[in-house]
Amino acid sequence: MMPTKRARVRRLPQRGAYDAATIHGILDAAFVAHVGFVTDGQPFVIPTLYGRREDTLYLHGSAASRMMREGDTGIPLCVTVTLVDALVLARSAFHHSINYRSVVAFGTARLIQGAEEKQRALQCISEQVLRGRWDEVRPPTEKELKATAVLEFAIEEASAKVRTGFPVDDEEDYGLPVWAGILPLPVVAQEPVADPRLGEGIGVAGSVGRWWSVVGGKGTEGLRD
Amino acid sequence: MMPTKRARVRRLPQRGAYDAATIHGILDAAFVAHVGFVTDGQPFVIPTLYGRREDTLYLHGSAASRMMREGDTGIPLCVTVTLVDALVLARSAFHHSINYRSVVAFGTARLIQGAEEKQRALQCISEQVLRGRWDEVRPPTEKELKATAVLEFAIEEASAKVRTGFPVDDEEDYGLPVWAGILPLPVVAQEPVADPRLGEGIGVAGSVGRWWSVVGGKGTEGLRD
Repeated sequence: MMPTKRARVRRLPQRGAYDAATIHGILDAAFVAHVGFVTDGQPFVIPTLYGRREDTLYLHGSAASRMMREGDTGIPLCVTVTLVDALVLARSAFHHSINYRSVVAFGTARLIQGAEEKQRALQCISEQVLRGRWDEVRPPTEKELKATAVLEFAIEEASAKVRTGFPVDDEEDYGLPVWAGILPLPVVAQEPVADPRLGEGIGVAGSVGRWWSVVGGKGTEGLRD
Repeated sequence: MMPTKRARVRRLPQRGAYDAATIHGILDAAFVAHVGFVTDGQPFVIPTLYGRREDTLYLHGSAASRMMREGDTGIPLCVTVTLVDALVLARSAFHHSINYRSVVAFGTARLIQGAEEKQRALQCISEQVLRGRWDEVRPPTEKELKATAVLEFAIEEASAKVRTGFPVDDEEDYGLPVWAGILPLPVVAQEPVADPRLGEGIGVAGSVGRWWSVVGGKGTEGLRD
């Protein structure tokens, strides 16, 4: 699907991608989005947990409290997800870069009202953050569901931008005596730390101990099974 | 300084902070910001490299290409920086959370015009990403400076939001046989990977090899000196 002007990648368009597989892959590798909205002409950008189902993102609470007003039925959002993979260190300042994967998505959000629908949306967010956790814990009560705001964001169009690989220097700079390469910067899960009030004999939860990756198959060190 | 309504933390206000030390500390621990702006009522959120000097952020290129128009002298931005530190795993779904540090900053941006000023701003961004790198590499030519857009963003007001520590469960849930605790998710620099075209005998650059931290003192594994 060709994007409209709004979603088209302008700068370095060779890094742009618009296919669902690329976009979904990036959205599924993260769990924090930056949600942009406008109030009285002022832009706001709020970090928010999210979960994806098809072309819908469920956005957790905090963003909603500021952006939704009484009676709002749908407000235009820009939801951006960014994964930083590495520093790209070139021989010239100009060609320094970052290896990253990002998605910029446009659409409209509405506040989820029904308790059942809200519970499903929260489960989707929970599964996105840590698969399997939802079934291990006490589910939300009716009162807790009421106290939680969840937005349903329907993606109308989106673009991905990806950079991978080594620096690309000007041909005449390859002879400079400057170290060049990449410095990988994955998010790496560390050993889980038990709550000091954890009851005796309770082992690390399956969802936590399981070999899992935060960022595209990386970040798997330091976890016991 | 008490913030205006715009910058005040509304949801979970006990997590809000408005002092310069907290805000600068978070801004100095990251190098990617999410920049929000409005064009024809449509919000945009673009990830961008940045550097901080006092209460000014220098924003690199890509955001500028879409948001600045011919003749713009200053446009309102929201610049948000988020560091995710850990998953917070409670005994109930409701009390799950994230340990994080974020800053939401409001102000106005202008495009930097002068070559000298632009070079200083780029150096500030470069130093924020990897201290010491700027002096190791070929500096930008006049032509390269012309090809690079840099925005100067003056922070008018900002708020920080921080969560640390263990989950806080409802008192009656502490008896549940559910593992609870935190799963730390630092960004960890891995072994640098040399460019395949690196000349023989060129050792890892000081800036790269040096013990350095991406996220507040963590992320120091896997680096040789």
